[in-house]
Amino acid sequence: MSADHARRWPDYAARRGALRSLLVENEVDALLVTDLVNIRYLTGFTGSNATLLVHSWDMRNAEERTVIGTDGRYRTQVSEQVPDLRAEIARATARRIAELAGEWQLGRVGYESHIVTVDQHRGFIEQCTGLEFVATPGLVEQLRMVKDPYEIEQLRAACAAGDAGLATLLERGALRPGRTERQVARDLEWAMFEHGAAAVAFETIVATGANSAVPHHRPTEAVLATGDFVKLDFGAVVGGYHSDMARTFVLGAPTDWHREVYALVQESQRAGREALTPGAQVADVDAAARAVIESAGHGKLFVHGLGHGVGLQIHEAPGIAKTGTGTLLSGVAVTVEPGVYFPGRGGVRIEDTLVVREGGPELLTNTSKDLTVVD
Amino acid sequence: MSADHARRWPDYAARRGALRSLLVENEVDALLVTDLVNIRYLTGFTGSNATLLVHSWDMRNAEERTVIGTDGRYRTQVSEQVPDLRAEIARATARRIAELAGEWQLGRVGYESHIVTVDQHRGFIEQCTGLEFVATPGLVEQLRMVKDPYEIEQLRAACAAGDAGLATLLERGALRPGRTERQVARDLEWAMFEHGAAAVAFETIVATGANSAVPHHRPTEAVLATGDFVKLDFGAVVGGYHSDMARTFVLGAPTDWHREVYALVQESQRAGREALTPGAQVADVDAAARAVIESAGHGKLFVHGLGHGVGLQIHEAPGIAKTGTGTLLSGVAVTVEPGVYFPGRGGVRIEDTLVVREGGPELLTNTSKDLTVVD
Repeated sequence: MSADHARRWPDYAARRGALRSLLVENEVDALLVTDLVNIRYLTGFTGSNATLLVHSWDMRNAEERTVIGTDGRYRTQVSEQVPDLRAEIARATARRIAELAGEWQLGRVGYESHIVTVDQHRGFIEQCTGLEFVATPGLVEQLRMVKDPYEIEQLRAACAAGDAGLATLLERGALRPGRTERQVARDLEWAMFEHGAAAVAFETIVATGANSAVPHHRPTEAVLATGDFVKLDFGAVVGGYHSDMARTFVLGAPTDWHREVYALVQESQRAGREALTPGAQVADVDAAARAVIESAGHGKLFVHGLGHGVGLQIHEAPGIAKTGTGTLLSGVAVTVEPGVYFPGRGGVRIEDTLVVREGGPELLTNTSKDLTVVD
Repeated sequence: MSADHARRWPDYAARRGALRSLLVENEVDALLVTDLVNIRYLTGFTGSNATLLVHSWDMRNAEERTVIGTDGRYRTQVSEQVPDLRAEIARATARRIAELAGEWQLGRVGYESHIVTVDQHRGFIEQCTGLEFVATPGLVEQLRMVKDPYEIEQLRAACAAGDAGLATLLERGALRPGRTERQVARDLEWAMFEHGAAAVAFETIVATGANSAVPHHRPTEAVLATGDFVKLDFGAVVGGYHSDMARTFVLGAPTDWHREVYALVQESQRAGREALTPGAQVADVDAAARAVIESAGHGKLFVHGLGHGVGLQIHEAPGIAKTGTGTLLSGVAVTVEPGVYFPGRGGVRIEDTLVVREGGPELLTNTSKDLTVVD
């Protein structure tokens, strides 16, 4: 398979193959997958109701016996999106798949104990008295951390839609004193749609003046005014993959305070990006960016973690925070987003989406991070 | 409290009071609420991380001891949105609240076993060895079925934004042959925003020609053409509440087939609406609408349930389907949305959002349901 082919076409069978190695390690004969995002990752199915049973390599004909269940609304869709797997159409999908696992006399069946509710779990056990259900949380999420070439291509496209949307917003002069946070948010979202976004990755944040000091501010009727920091945090979805970027602007001539705060966050963000290397502990990456802000005496104003994984979901593993655990690998996609927030006055956050690589991370969000003044 | 006041202000304390009666019935001393929508319903808190412990009426000072937990990002927000309850700020919110339940030596604590994962449940038990956790699924959802005056006012506003958005789309001539499904979807969403929608209730469906026969089609680059049915299914969010409406148009002069299919679905939808009475079995409401389509010989082309509850979520209890159980009460908000789908040719769905009332349902979506021809 050429590199170009791998960028253009998702290889679901290869993903299931990688999962099977984890099933062998976890000594289960199959995994009952009920999380819809995990099912999409493993099969390409995007419907709203599905259950997937993936057999371990230790089972004979593992791929042939792997089966996806959904209901009658998705009969056509499942045959189009998942032509390579057996499909079961049933009203109570999880029940039917668990029943099949029973018929096949699978012994130990893993399930997503971090997703499956207590009531669902009780249902599985009542349905299949012969099976042993084993809690195997987070196996698919572990695989999803490292993006394959197809996924990185989607992330690039999503980040490009975000970059282009912001550029269009600025070209149109739609970010300026006198407009409301809500107007700017709508215009930015619209511009991302014009540039190929299928959806927004999350509710766009536009926060001006004192609102910029609120990390997760939602857009209001507040009016942008000269002298404000304006913080934008937004993203696009392309092919199911999410981009995530934040930029902070100054309206009118910046004061020394604007320049100092901005330069501090910019320096912290650079340190965070540079710490992204295969083998790095996530807590060390957080520390590298945090140290810059702490040595300026503002450690208490950086009130959140440094970043997070991003992919089919806007927030995925790994969490990059003080208390984060684990190691980065080549191909992990993450955000780096330090912020300094002065309550009642204003704040700055600068965020990129990047892919960890040998030799330095690949930057997917390419909008300038220099202090930008808007009149 | 005046009727006007009740329409304008949510009464969270009254909702918690109603829940306490259910806790007494279920013989638990408190309920550990972890579902964020249920927490919003009971307190008004809209942050992304919270746990709520509601004490039963049988506990002394039930309201005073009821406590909401969230993390440091939401310190200000929780004090503003939930001024009437004690707030606990902690990193591991559910853990801290479960710990408090232990300190207070609550005996039997209900939990949302339909929401809580197996891993979370294990965490609760390990954290609080002295407590007995009792599965009490769906208690808050049961309350949420019957909307209070404030909620109905929000639903009215959400439905009005949907009606006005569609009217604007049509006035602008944005629904016409030559445009793509995706363009029409974007324009309709934009028009809803102009009319006060804070968000779309779900991904807008625009399905033209053969695509209109796919119940949950997602907008594509398909071009609207003369002779097509065009099905729109969409909604707005206002104040957290969702509207849901579908209309189907004919592009150009309708044929006899267009007229017949449309009239059949219109008649079925009318029968469904008329069956919405306090005390009706939901399965009977479905049957009333389905009988119309079955007697025309097209029963197999109506491939989904008749409708669903709607409120803080786009799909809530009760489900109105063949296999649905339960009885309607005055104040329950539901959709009525029969459809007939001819694979490869086209389909029609007509949907309203209504509130069940003595003397006949209140129609919240007021766009005409007469066959509308667009040139």
